[in-house]
This record gives sequence, structure tokens and C-alpha cells, in this order.
Amino acid sequence: MNQQHFTNTDILQLDKRFRTNLINSLGGFKSANLIGTFSKQGNTNLAIFSSVVHIGANPPLMGMISRPNSVPRHTLENIVATEQFTINHVHKRFFRNAHQTAARYDANISEFDATQLTPEFIDTIDNFNAPFVQEARIKIGLQLSEIIDIQLNNTKMIIGEVVYLALPENIIAADGYIDIEQAGTVAISGLDNYHTTQRLERLPYAKPVRPLV
Amino acid sequence: MNQQHFTNTDILQLDKRFRTNLINSLGGFKSANLIGTFSKQGNTNLAIFSSVVHIGANPPLMGMISRPNSVPRHTLENIVATEQFTINHVHKRFFRNAHQTAARYDANISEFDATQLTPEFIDTIDNFNAPFVQEARIKIGLQLSEIIDIQLNNTKMIIGEVVYLALPENIIAADGYIDIEQAGTVAISGLDNYHTTQRLERLPYAKPVRPLV
Repeated sequence: MNQQHFTNTDILQLDKRFRTNLINSLGGFKSANLIGTFSKQGNTNLAIFSSVVHIGANPPLMGMISRPNSVPRHTLENIVATEQFTINHVHKRFFRNAHQTAARYDANISEFDATQLTPEFIDTIDNFNAPFVQEARIKIGLQLSEIIDIQLNNTKMIIGEVVYLALPENIIAADGYIDIEQAGTVAISGLDNYHTTQRLERLPYAKPVRPLV
Repeated sequence: MNQQHFTNTDILQLDKRFRTNLINSLGGFKSANLIGTFSKQGNTNLAIFSSVVHIGANPPLMGMISRPNSVPRHTLENIVATEQFTINHVHKRFFRNAHQTAARYDANISEFDATQLTPEFIDTIDNFNAPFVQEARIKIGLQLSEIIDIQLNNTKMIIGEVVYLALPENIIAADGYIDIEQAGTVAISGLDNYHTTQRLERLPYAKPVRPLV
């Protein structure tokens, strides 16, 4: 099995599309989430993100990376304007619909309509107006906490606090772990590869005195 | 299938361990990477991270979240001191060893020794001294670009630029995509669940005029 090596100079000299695919594959498996937002004018928007990351449990904070605003980024614009968004796990039954939200639709077209997904609104918490994906099993409502500029490449990290969570009760373990594999959540690799998962093992808390290997 | 709902207040009132497991499960599947560093004194360190995220392809930037520095964080300390680190994909053959790096070893104990993984050093680029994991199939060397404070909860985002990449050449597609599933890379859910993957499909670039659904 031959090894291939790239230096920084090699990477910078690659064809743009090759480099984009290569570097987007480097981090490992990524989360697959649909981000639901609404505009000041009341239009709903839905976009797939593979960069959602855990920031902290107390307070419950989640982050995601938004690419440069050099072309219209409706998700970022909407969150700046309305300070609310939803995170909806992509289920294996609608991963194609989810991927299709990445197409560049005009701002007046809702990706919900264009991709045959159903917007869902909740009235159990006050003044939360961002749309959830009805078809999703795991749905999270967030209030914007902070947008951090990453000046290195003009991206932004959007951080929100969980204000609402809905999920099937039979996938929550006694200790709080959510069995997202049982829930049918998929993973992404690169820009466009979708994967189901198969659990190897749940491991105990690691301690020096009780090595796992 | 009954649904369970949590508000922000519900979440804040949960038992700490339950909340930690719950919120750590919310983002979806996470990457599984071993971060290799070295101290000013020359000690090697290895730690599992599930928060590596793609920041950009040009320049090639990758980020990860480091938890608060309230207890010693050798990885963060080492990166601050030496400005270099490695990202090594966790392979299904050594996921237990990888998980064991999370045990709280003293600074003078190398997790490489404690978890039976092999440090590897490269001399093909100048002055790069951070240790790679020899057993890993996909190995990335990074130079620190920036550490961003997330003041909301006292975490930090560490961003590095890829200066070196080594991987088997037979897993790179003609367009640059790296088949990390074929490479045996695993995914994480929650704090301690490890998963292999099975590809559903690689989807084409999404366009409004050519809907996938």
C-alpha cells in the first residue's frame, strides 16, 4: 500500500476542486444537520451543515461554521436578523432531500418546499419562531449566543444555546446518552458522502488504573 | 413512539452527568482523532478529540475545541508552547487505545506509552517535531494559526494550518475525496460510543434545476 505525501506547498498548488474535496475529507466523519431559520420578512430557510460541534453542556451550547459571506448566506443573514435557529438531525430516510438544500435557491424560495421537507413550528416555548424539520427524529431549538469572526479566512462560528429539545424517549439511555444510531441519524464524509453507522462498542470512562488495552 | 421534550430550564436542572451525556449527543456523529503534541521539555502527549472541524480549504485550516483550562490540559499547553500538533484518524483497530488516552495521566507520562501506540516523527519537512501516531492511516501535521477564546464558557478554538499530510494513495479519488470509510476511520457519538460506517451514497453537487428528490 503506497503512501502519498503532501506538503503545504503541494496543497496550495492543487487544482481548486481537488483541494476542496481533499481538505474537506481530513477531519474525519462529520455531523449531518439541517439548520432551519426564518427571515425578518417571515420566509423560512433550510440548509445542510456538516460543521455542528459541541461547545459545552452547562450552559448547553452548540456551534457551527458559516463560510464567507462573499455570496449570499441566507442562514447566517437570518440568524443575525432573528437570533434563532434549529438543528435537525438528518435521518437516512431523507438524506437526499437534505443534500438538495445545498442548491443555490433564491431567497424567496423556501428550501422546505423545494426539497419536500415539512416546516414545523412549536408553541410550547414563547416567541420561538424558527422552523423545525417535521420529518427529523431529533430537533433542537437554539437562541443565538455569539457570532465569532474567524479572520484567518473570513468564516464565522455561530454559537447558540439550546432552548428546546424534542426526541423519541426510547432512544435516551438512563444516563442521558442519546442513541443517535438507533434514531437513524447519518454521518457525512467529504462534501457529499452519506453514511449509516454500526456501533463497535460503548466504552467506560477511561482511568489510568483501569486500562482498556 | 412517545416524544420527550426539554426546555432550557429542564436541561439546566438535570443531573450533571445526565446533562453531559445528553448535550454531548446532540450534534450528531463526531470525528475521532488523536491529537499529538510535545512539550518544551520534549515530552510527547496524545489525546483523543471529537471536536475537529473543517475551517477552510484554501488555506487548508482545521479547528478543534479545547475545554476550560480549569484542570491541566496538556494538549492546549503544548500547542501554546510549541505551536505544532498532529491530527491522526482513529482506526477501528485501535479505538480502545485511542479512548484510553482520555485517562488523566501525569504530564511526565506519555499517553503513547500508556496506551500502546507508537510515536512517529517525520524529517521530510523542516522543524516539525510533533509526534504522529504510526498506527494511523491518515496523519496530518499542523502549524498553529490562532487560538480563539470562546468567552461564553471559557473554552478555546484551536486553529491550525495543514503543513503535512500522509495517507495511502489508493483511498484518494480522482477528484480529491478521501475514502475515510475504506481507510477504517471510526466515528464517535456522545462521549464514548465508537462506530464504523457504511456508505449510503455519494451524491452529486446539488443544483436547483436538477433536484435529487
